[in-house]
Amino acid sequence: MASALLSRQLALSLQQNLRLAAPGYRYISKTATKTLEEFEYDGPSMKTEVPGPRSKALTKQLGEIQNVGAVHFFCNYEESRGNYLVDVDGNRMLDLYTQISSIPIGYNHPALMKVMSNPNNLSAFVNRPALGILPPENFPDKLVESLLSVAPSGMTRVQTMACGSCSNENAYKAMFIWYRNKERGHNIPSQEEISSCMVNQVPGCPDLSILSFMGGFHGRTMGCLATTHSKAIHKLDVPSFDWPIAPFPKLRYPLEEFARENAQEEARCLEEVEDLIVKWRQKGRPVAGIVIEPIQAEGGDNHASPDFFRNLRNIARKHGCAFHVDEVQTGGGATGKFWAHEHWGMDDPADIVSFSKKLLTGGYYHKNELTADKPYRIFNTWMGDPSKNIFLAEVLNVIKRERLLDEVTRTGKALLQGLYELQACRSGLPTAQYPHLLSAARGKGTFCAIDVCDDSTRNNLINKARDKGIIIGGCGDKSIRFRPALVFKEYHVHLFLNMFNDILAEYK
Amino acid sequence: MASALLSRQLALSLQQNLRLAAPGYRYISKTATKTLEEFEYDGPSMKTEVPGPRSKALTKQLGEIQNVGAVHFFCNYEESRGNYLVDVDGNRMLDLYTQISSIPIGYNHPALMKVMSNPNNLSAFVNRPALGILPPENFPDKLVESLLSVAPSGMTRVQTMACGSCSNENAYKAMFIWYRNKERGHNIPSQEEISSCMVNQVPGCPDLSILSFMGGFHGRTMGCLATTHSKAIHKLDVPSFDWPIAPFPKLRYPLEEFARENAQEEARCLEEVEDLIVKWRQKGRPVAGIVIEPIQAEGGDNHASPDFFRNLRNIARKHGCAFHVDEVQTGGGATGKFWAHEHWGMDDPADIVSFSKKLLTGGYYHKNELTADKPYRIFNTWMGDPSKNIFLAEVLNVIKRERLLDEVTRTGKALLQGLYELQACRSGLPTAQYPHLLSAARGKGTFCAIDVCDDSTRNNLINKARDKGIIIGGCGDKSIRFRPALVFKEYHVHLFLNMFNDILAEYK
Repeated sequence: MASALLSRQLALSLQQNLRLAAPGYRYISKTATKTLEEFEYDGPSMKTEVPGPRSKALTKQLGEIQNVGAVHFFCNYEESRGNYLVDVDGNRMLDLYTQISSIPIGYNHPALMKVMSNPNNLSAFVNRPALGILPPENFPDKLVESLLSVAPSGMTRVQTMACGSCSNENAYKAMFIWYRNKERGHNIPSQEEISSCMVNQVPGCPDLSILSFMGGFHGRTMGCLATTHSKAIHKLDVPSFDWPIAPFPKLRYPLEEFARENAQEEARCLEEVEDLIVKWRQKGRPVAGIVIEPIQAEGGDNHASPDFFRNLRNIARKHGCAFHVDEVQTGGGATGKFWAHEHWGMDDPADIVSFSKKLLTGGYYHKNELTADKPYRIFNTWMGDPSKNIFLAEVLNVIKRERLLDEVTRTGKALLQGLYELQACRSGLPTAQYPHLLSAARGKGTFCAIDVCDDSTRNNLINKARDKGIIIGGCGDKSIRFRPALVFKEYHVHLFLNMFNDILAEYK
Repeated sequence: MASALLSRQLALSLQQNLRLAAPGYRYISKTATKTLEEFEYDGPSMKTEVPGPRSKALTKQLGEIQNVGAVHFFCNYEESRGNYLVDVDGNRMLDLYTQISSIPIGYNHPALMKVMSNPNNLSAFVNRPALGILPPENFPDKLVESLLSVAPSGMTRVQTMACGSCSNENAYKAMFIWYRNKERGHNIPSQEEISSCMVNQVPGCPDLSILSFMGGFHGRTMGCLATTHSKAIHKLDVPSFDWPIAPFPKLRYPLEEFARENAQEEARCLEEVEDLIVKWRQKGRPVAGIVIEPIQAEGGDNHASPDFFRNLRNIARKHGCAFHVDEVQTGGGATGKFWAHEHWGMDDPADIVSFSKKLLTGGYYHKNELTADKPYRIFNTWMGDPSKNIFLAEVLNVIKRERLLDEVTRTGKALLQGLYELQACRSGLPTAQYPHLLSAARGKGTFCAIDVCDDSTRNNLINKARDKGIIIGGCGDKSIRFRPALVFKEYHVHLFLNMFNDILAEYK
């Protein structure tokens, strides 16, 4: 019934828009005046355990076509709204995981539905261009309006790509090209380089490396995978490169209570980074670039201090390595700033910043000198998808109009405070309730996490929460990660904490 | 004015559809009865040279953001229709290159515009899911209706991905995983494998290889790039793997006139393949898989006989290597069969077939035994995009309804015949007109090419043709490739040949 209703509403709204639509008409969202509370559901509603019978039947059906070991359940995206994901068995869940952190402003946001009903946009969906050779007329303007309007400090150039892995792969290539031209002192390759590269050999395909960190995750294509070190299952059986891997600081939380020992740990890791750069140079595999996440996400929500990143950025500069900040998961506002690296307070935070997920398109920003020196070096058929830029421009409008970054900061504080209260180690708080179960609550904005006593209890807790109507995700060995959309409000936090508390009570 | 007209027509059509739209209603295209001639323009129409002033201004603007060395001109996709691409200066060109071969049924096909106006589809565009964990309800059905309805012989499993490079990267990973499990005799990795893979070392990251061919193109991410050998600019400065590279047959055209010497050349290459497999096994880098295009596209439209591919497939089987046919450019109907490998007439043509471009989504089909043994091994956040599957299902409907593969075969014959007549070497034809300029016309369906006397004349010819209103592409050292959409008809061929003849006449 709800589906028919939504369909009717939508049809009506489409017709209204079409009457208004004319060349040059700039769409102004009426629905924006409707509050989130009016738009979305008022709470979870569970009818079956999850996955329910319909999800199980569909999983079996899909199992004839694909490995379905990772499928949680099947979704009814038409019925999902705001922070609520509805499944095919009619279960409605409060979503704090949002498609692995990739839904920026909730499901079926009215502003995005209206993008679809604007006839001026249709052609961008139907005719996907080869962007590198035949861009659409509005492409530069759309870039300015969307990606460049949130460009990291010091960067005015951006390259779109189709997904996170492609973004990082091409960012690595840009760093290799830049590094080799720097080594050469010019950009004219020798005949030997040209012929040797065709058969994968030095000097044309040089022995350069990217320095990455233990616990890091940068994607699963073969270049990215050589810098990913979060779980063995991602890497097992795939050939790789002999590239240096530095330790990522293992800090104690809350960070401010363990500042001194955390600083020592960070100093140890930074020293190791410099040692590795020297060692790999001596080995004949110089480090062309360093890649790091501002918060290691997949690897367990591992934080480091702004000082650590500032020092690392200086080390990169000192040794002539490019500095690549991978914001695929942290970018887009969840930390309370649009980019997590803004928390470092630097004018020149990076040479390359890559993104995807909440940005809806993949890609990377880069400094001028990281622009490939010749066409077709950073290139593929699609190089992104302009239809995603249209959505992104509207997402950014919503973020600005509704001041969502401020909201995220406020909401995130409530969430972290609630997590502190559930765990043991925060002084000055009421007696912790689940010290045997929970520890190390941490986060920036709503990009929060907490550790569970062990892997199996963590997984069990995630499944129990789902059966009660709450979707959360795991990361690292035994962490729970929270990745709500930017429209997750304080009242959602309280709803979540109450329900989570009830679930934890079963473990007492 | 045309824009306003199109907008009005579209708005009207949207409104009509919305009145009909109701849950369960299956859309039937009315516009399909309109012929292509009625829908599209009646010929090229040129107002400026290309790029014109508006394109140049936009290129300058985009140049502030990206390297624009590869940009040909800026397009007005709203005004483009069928086989005609319109640019921002009002030039209308007959498109035989179709966004590097990635537009299946022409621009703004009415059937695809209607997909956009069906409210039941909107949610798929607005809510891009993490397909590997939370697929939409209709995902299995859409796979069956779209990709599986055209599955290569012997394959019932398919994995979608976002682009061609990701498809090949993941196909390579699937081959590595399969090969290692075969070597182990089971799929339980040792503790040493688990710990060594985390730091990119053997045995966890094994020294396995993929055998590829000189002149091949399989993408630009680092795994793919190690198997790409078409142009130095793609590979220069990027570290690579020491993997074996076999010669691809250099044949004489027309193939049937040089059957005996071509067979000798193919035998030589096959022998080299076997030698390389043995050599790399002895080197400790066994060949897990062989990857090849049915027609080397980017590398110069190099063909080989069905016998060559049948023998190669047998060599792969004999040596226990997976056989991966890369149909990213050849797939989707342009050769007159949906997959180019169908021309080989085999029941068991491959272990893996990858696709992208005309299929609108990337991905690969594979045999059962190439399914990853555990979840999250072949995985990423998006794993494709269900909104593209919706378009693909409609493209396949159009291909079937309008019998486009038969059309392509017919059209392709006319095109190839015309090319033969323009060049020198075909006996029994009227005197060739441009023997000093053109040679080696070749093709299957409309997937045709012809060689020009040298690189610079080729490039000059492509630019001249564009100024006259014809878009064609280059490939290899000195070839022109033709990649029209599947809706390119015989009358378009004649239009093209007449215009091309006039352009060639300037070189007499």
